[in-house]
Amino acid sequence: MTASNDEKWINKKISRRDMLKLTGIGAAGVAIGASGLGGVMKAMGYDVFEPVADSTTARNKVDFYGTHQSGIVTPVQTNIYFASLDVLFTSKKELQELFKQWTPLVVRLMNGELMVDLTTNTRVPTGDTGEAEGLNASNLSITIGVGPSLFEKLGIQHLKPAELKDLPHFPKDQLQKEYTGGDICIQACADDPQVAFHAVRNLVRAASGKVEIKWSQAGFNSFPTGGGTPRNLFAFKDGTGNPTAEKDLNKVVWVDKGWLKGGSYLVARKVQMHLETWDRTSLKDQEATFGRYRDSGAPFGKKKEFDDFDVEAKDSNGEYIMPDTSHVHLARKSGARILRRSYSYASGVMTNTGAHDAGLMFISFQKDPAQFTTVQNSLGRMDKMNEYITHRGSAVFACFPGVQKGSYLGEALFNAL
Amino acid sequence: MTASNDEKWINKKISRRDMLKLTGIGAAGVAIGASGLGGVMKAMGYDVFEPVADSTTARNKVDFYGTHQSGIVTPVQTNIYFASLDVLFTSKKELQELFKQWTPLVVRLMNGELMVDLTTNTRVPTGDTGEAEGLNASNLSITIGVGPSLFEKLGIQHLKPAELKDLPHFPKDQLQKEYTGGDICIQACADDPQVAFHAVRNLVRAASGKVEIKWSQAGFNSFPTGGGTPRNLFAFKDGTGNPTAEKDLNKVVWVDKGWLKGGSYLVARKVQMHLETWDRTSLKDQEATFGRYRDSGAPFGKKKEFDDFDVEAKDSNGEYIMPDTSHVHLARKSGARILRRSYSYASGVMTNTGAHDAGLMFISFQKDPAQFTTVQNSLGRMDKMNEYITHRGSAVFACFPGVQKGSYLGEALFNAL
Ligand code: HEM
Ligand code: HEM
Repeated sequence: MTASNDEKWINKKISRRDMLKLTGIGAAGVAIGASGLGGVMKAMGYDVFEPVADSTTARNKVDFYGTHQSGIVTPVQTNIYFASLDVLFTSKKELQELFKQWTPLVVRLMNGELMVDLTTNTRVPTGDTGEAEGLNASNLSITIGVGPSLFEKLGIQHLKPAELKDLPHFPKDQLQKEYTGGDICIQACADDPQVAFHAVRNLVRAASGKVEIKWSQAGFNSFPTGGGTPRNLFAFKDGTGNPTAEKDLNKVVWVDKGWLKGGSYLVARKVQMHLETWDRTSLKDQEATFGRYRDSGAPFGKKKEFDDFDVEAKDSNGEYIMPDTSHVHLARKSGARILRRSYSYASGVMTNTGAHDAGLMFISFQKDPAQFTTVQNSLGRMDKMNEYITHRGSAVFACFPGVQKGSYLGEALFNAL
Repeated sequence: MTASNDEKWINKKISRRDMLKLTGIGAAGVAIGASGLGGVMKAMGYDVFEPVADSTTARNKVDFYGTHQSGIVTPVQTNIYFASLDVLFTSKKELQELFKQWTPLVVRLMNGELMVDLTTNTRVPTGDTGEAEGLNASNLSITIGVGPSLFEKLGIQHLKPAELKDLPHFPKDQLQKEYTGGDICIQACADDPQVAFHAVRNLVRAASGKVEIKWSQAGFNSFPTGGGTPRNLFAFKDGTGNPTAEKDLNKVVWVDKGWLKGGSYLVARKVQMHLETWDRTSLKDQEATFGRYRDSGAPFGKKKEFDDFDVEAKDSNGEYIMPDTSHVHLARKSGARILRRSYSYASGVMTNTGAHDAGLMFISFQKDPAQFTTVQNSLGRMDKMNEYITHRGSAVFACFPGVQKGSYLGEALFNAL
C-alpha cells in the first residue's frame, strides 16, 4: 500500500459474511456508507494508535487480546502458513511503527474482517487482497515473534534476551539458508489454507518496503473424523506427550521475566521425512523407532494413547520396554519439556531423486530455546528416527506476550528501550 | 511392496473408521481374523483379477465405477495432490499389470479403506502407509491418465490418439522441465490434504520399481462459508464460465470415439501468479483484466455471477462493455470451450526474489487438447492477465473412460492392442 492511497481508505467494520451480501453493489464500486477514516488510517503506520476490538459475533474466532498470543496454547488448526521475514529498515522507531501498524490489522484478520475497508475509489489498489472474502475467521491465529538477527540489525543488542540466539549446529543438520533464520516471524494458523495465506500476504503487503519474506512454508494437520490427535506423515499420532495442564504450561512454555514475560520462544525446524525409506520399514521397526504403537498411539507396554509410562521400566529380561534408542524414550529422558505444535508438508518431489519432498514443519514453544536444544541433543546421539529424517531449516523467535486492549504487539520491548 | 511380502497380506474389508475401534488390539500386531487371501493378493499384480466394490456405507464417498472416471465432472474438492509419473518399464504387459493392480486399490482408497488389509505379521512393511487412518473417504477422487511419452516408450505409437501430443510452445511460456510432461498422471482430489497425498503415496509405493514421480503439486480451493464459487489467489471467483449441462459436457469434455471413448484429455499447467504486481493494481484495472467484477463475479454490465453476457456488446461510445483485452472476453471469443478444475498453490517464496511462489495449478478437461490450445492462443495474443502470470509447467494426459465392475482402468486400450 503506498502512502498516496492511505487517505482513500474508508474505515467501516464489516465481516466477510456481511460483505458477501453486499457483493452485488459493492462490486461495481458503489459507495456503501463509511463510518470515519480514523482507526485504520492511523493503523497504517502513524503514531496515533487506535485499537480494534475482538469481534463478539464472528464465527470460528480465536481472540486476539489476552495474556498470551494466540497460536501457542490455543487449539491446533488444520493449516499453517509460516513466514520468516527480514526487515529492510535499521531503526527501532520503524520497528515500533510496524508493530503499531500491524496490531489492529491482526485483530481485524482474526475477526474475519477485511484488512481495511471498502473504498469508493476503484482506481487505487484495494485495501485487502480479497481472496478470503466469503470465508469466515476460520479460527485464524497469528503469532508474531522476533529473531536474534533483528536485534543486531537495529543496534539494540542490549535488549536481546540471553536466551535468544541461533540454535547450535546439531551433528546431522543439513540446513539450507533458504529455510533458516529471519528477523521476524508470522505464524498464521487457520482451519482454511487460504485464510492463513491471506493473513501473511496482507500483513507483508501492508508493510511493503519495510519487510520482505525470507522464507515461508505451508503445512497441514488432518484431524480424525472422530476427533483426537492427528497423525504425521509417518502415520503416528503427533502431539500426545505435550504438556496441557496450566501449571505445566507455566513451567514449560511461558517466559516469566523481562520484557518477554508472558511470551514464549518459538523454534521452527523444517524436517524432511524420507517417506520411501520409512515405507520399506516393518511396522515393528517403525513402532520401535518411536516406542509407541502406531495405531493406538499407546506407549510400549500400555493400552491407551495417554497412558502414563515409566521410561526406565524394563521387562523380565532386563530390556527397556520402551527401547532406549526410541524417539520418545530419548525425548522424555532428556528431562527437558517443550510444547510441540507442528504441521505436515508435502511440497512435491526432490528434483534430483524424485523422492517426496515432504515432512514436518516442526514448531515448538518453550520458555527457553535451551529446552529444545536439550531434547535435540538427547535425540541426536542415538535416536533411531534419525535414519528417516533430515533437518533442512531452522529458526528461533521470541514471541511477544499477549496484547491488552489499547496496547500493541511488543509494547513491553519498546518500553524497555 | 516387495513380492516376498505379498503372501502375508490378509484380505479383510475394513473401513478406516472400523480400524479405529480396533486400534487397541490391532496395534500390538494381534491377529483380528482374516477372510481369505484372494482378492487383494491378486490385485497386487497377478493376472487373475477380482474387483473390489464401491462401498455403500462410507462417509463422503465418491463412486469409482461408472461411465466416466471421477475427478472430472464430479464436484471440486478442497484439496488436490497431482502427480506426474514416469514408467520404469518398457512392455505393454507391465503397463496392463500396473492398471490391473491399481484398479482395486483405487476403489479401496476411494471407499476410505486401507490399501490392503491388516497383517498378522508386523515384521514386514505395512500394506498401507497409515496416515489416512481415522480420516474418512473425504470425497477422494482419483483420475488416471496416460501421456504421449508413454506410447513412445512402450512402442505402441499406433494406439496413441492423434489428439494426444505435447502442447505447442506458447509465446510467453517459461516452462521448467521439473514441472513438465510425464507418462502417467494421478490426480487425487479430496476434502482433506492428507487423504489426497496418502492416495498418491500409496499407489506409487504399490508400484515401486515400476513408476517414479517426475513431478507433483499440491493445491487447495477454499469454498465460501455460504457456498458458491471459490476464489483464486487473484481474489476472483474461478469456475463460473464452466459448462455444466449434460449436453454441453458431452460436447466439451467427453471423447466419443476410439478406445478413449468416455474418457477425456487433461491439460495441466502450473501457472505462477505474480501476487505482488497484482496487489499493486487498482481494483478497476483488476476487474478490467478479467471483464468481471471481483466481488460479485458478474460479467461487466451485469449484476449477478451467472448472468449471461454477449462478448460483442458495446456501450453507447462504441466501446466493448467487456474489454477485448480481458481474459474472459478473449477466452469466450476463442469459440472453444473447456472444463476448468483448477487449484491454488502457495509453496513459499522464490529464492532469488522473495516473491510469493504461488499461483494456480490450472487443470482443464476437454475432448481434444486442441480446445485448450485454441483458448490459450486467443489469450496469448493480448490477454491483459499475461502481465500477472507466468506458465511454469505443462502436461497433457488422456484420462481413461470410467470403469465398469469387473473391468479395470484402461481396459479398452489393451483390448485395442
Ligand atoms: C520429523 C520429525 C519428527 C517426528 C516425525 C516426530 C514424531 C513424534 C512422535 C510420533 C511422537 C510421539 C507422540 C507424541 O508425544 O507426540 C513424538 C514425541 C516427542 N517428540 Fe518428536 N518428532 C519429530 C521431531 C522432534 C524434534 C526435532 C523434537 C525436539 C528436539 C521432538 C521432541 C519430541 C518430544 C519432546 C516428544 C514427547 C516425548 C514424551 O512423551 O515425553 N520431536 N515425536
Ligand atoms: C493463473 C491463471 C488463470 C487465472 C487466474 C484465471 C482466472 C479466470 C477467471 C477469474 C475467470 C472468470 C470466471 C470463470 O469463468 O471462471 C476465468 C475464465 C476463463 N478462463 Fe481463466 N484463468 C487462468 C488461466 C486460464 C488458462 C490458461 C485458460 C485456458 C487456456 C483459461 C481459460 C478460461 C476460460 C475458457 C474461461 C471462461 C470464459 C467464458 O466465460 O467463456 N484460463 N479465468
